[in-house]
Amino acid sequence: MGAVRSAEAGKRVVIVMTSGPSTPHRCATPFFIGMLLASMDAEVAIFFTMEGVLLTRRGVAENLAAMAGGKEIIHFIREAKEAGVKLYMCRPAMPGYDIDDEDIISEIDEVASGGVLAEMILSCDKALFF
Amino acid sequence: MGAVRSAEAGKRVVIVMTSGPSTPHRCATPFFIGMLLASMDAEVAIFFTMEGVLLTRRGVAENLAAMAGGKEIIHFIREAKEAGVKLYMCRPAMPGYDIDDEDIISEIDEVASGGVLAEMILSCDKALFF
Amino acid sequence: MGAVRSAEAGKRVVIVMTSGPSTPHRCATPFFIGMLLASMDAEVAIFFTMEGVLLTRRGVAENLAAMAGGKEIIHFIREAKEAGVKLYMCRPAMPGYDIDDEDIISEIDEVASGGVLAEMILSCDKALFF
Repeated sequence: MGAVRSAEAGKRVVIVMTSGPSTPHRCATPFFIGMLLASMDAEVAIFFTMEGVLLTRRGVAENLAAMAGGKEIIHFIREAKEAGVKLYMCRPAMPGYDIDDEDIISEIDEVASGGVLAEMILSCDKALFF
Repeated sequence: MGAVRSAEAGKRVVIVMTSGPSTPHRCATPFFIGMLLASMDAEVAIFFTMEGVLLTRRGVAENLAAMAGGKEIIHFIREAKEAGVKLYMCRPAMPGYDIDDEDIISEIDEVASGGVLAEMILSCDKALFF
Repeated sequence: MGAVRSAEAGKRVVIVMTSGPSTPHRCATPFFIGMLLASMDAEVAIFFTMEGVLLTRRGVAENLAAMAGGKEIIHFIREAKEAGVKLYMCRPAMPGYDIDDEDIISEIDEVASGGVLAEMILSCDKALFF
């Protein structure tokens, strides 16, 4: 954002993404907000858990749009990543949704334990829930 | 709240309202909580985004109740406003829900960018998500 | 967690549980996260409100699972409690869901006003929303 960093620069944000394909209208904005926050020099992690993990299965985000005629969710995920957002997948949520490691899109930076999420929640500056 | 202000007075709270008419049971309480927080001298903003923006279209909140026989959602919106809550509408969410500026209820204080929401999230004391 | 307490020990967390039987896949993880946070020496309160209050009616959490074949929700509620999580029920939400005091499972520590929730939200270190 140029030479002048905002007063909020460096804040750590975790976005807990619990929405998935059963509510497509909830699946684009969280990544857009993550992208915006990262563009404002926040350190942003998006943590997929609960139904959100389904968005990380190959073929899902590539073929899902929040709105009829809207861009696919993978577009928003990639824009967030390009802005510097890190993407985490909740390992304990994987068996319930029948997802194996090899099913996960390459955009995911790390498959992490629930303890990692809990630690992020305690240590971050802001936790967001969608 | 009288001469004695609480220890929490002046705290800034943003309530991100993502629920809308498809989940009416989620549409009253967020305004009630906003009203309570404002009554405790917090500075409260409610930011409508995602499906929440539909509640700002004329005719929607006036004809929707969270519960059968309950008061209409507009009642809760107005109570929040009377307690001092400011209401923001997410401009980037408007086209997807086919909402124009002239469609919006007069209770909305400001139509704002996603950057305004991001800045609120970073700078507030507490961010709530419904 | 043994003799060494984490840097995050003693942080106060409130988990606002708004999901209920209409979205069973959202009903186990919040208690699991509460249990994890309490195990990391956070002081955790789970506050049932909106549809979440239905989980406190006798017979509901005992017969609901987040996933086909998964453990019943009451199991996750009890694990959270055993880890030290306190459970609060939102009194103003009870009439709308037709719940009386005698209907509530014994795991609930306190039936509380909306003002208690608002105060928790203002005074906690982290507020989580599911």
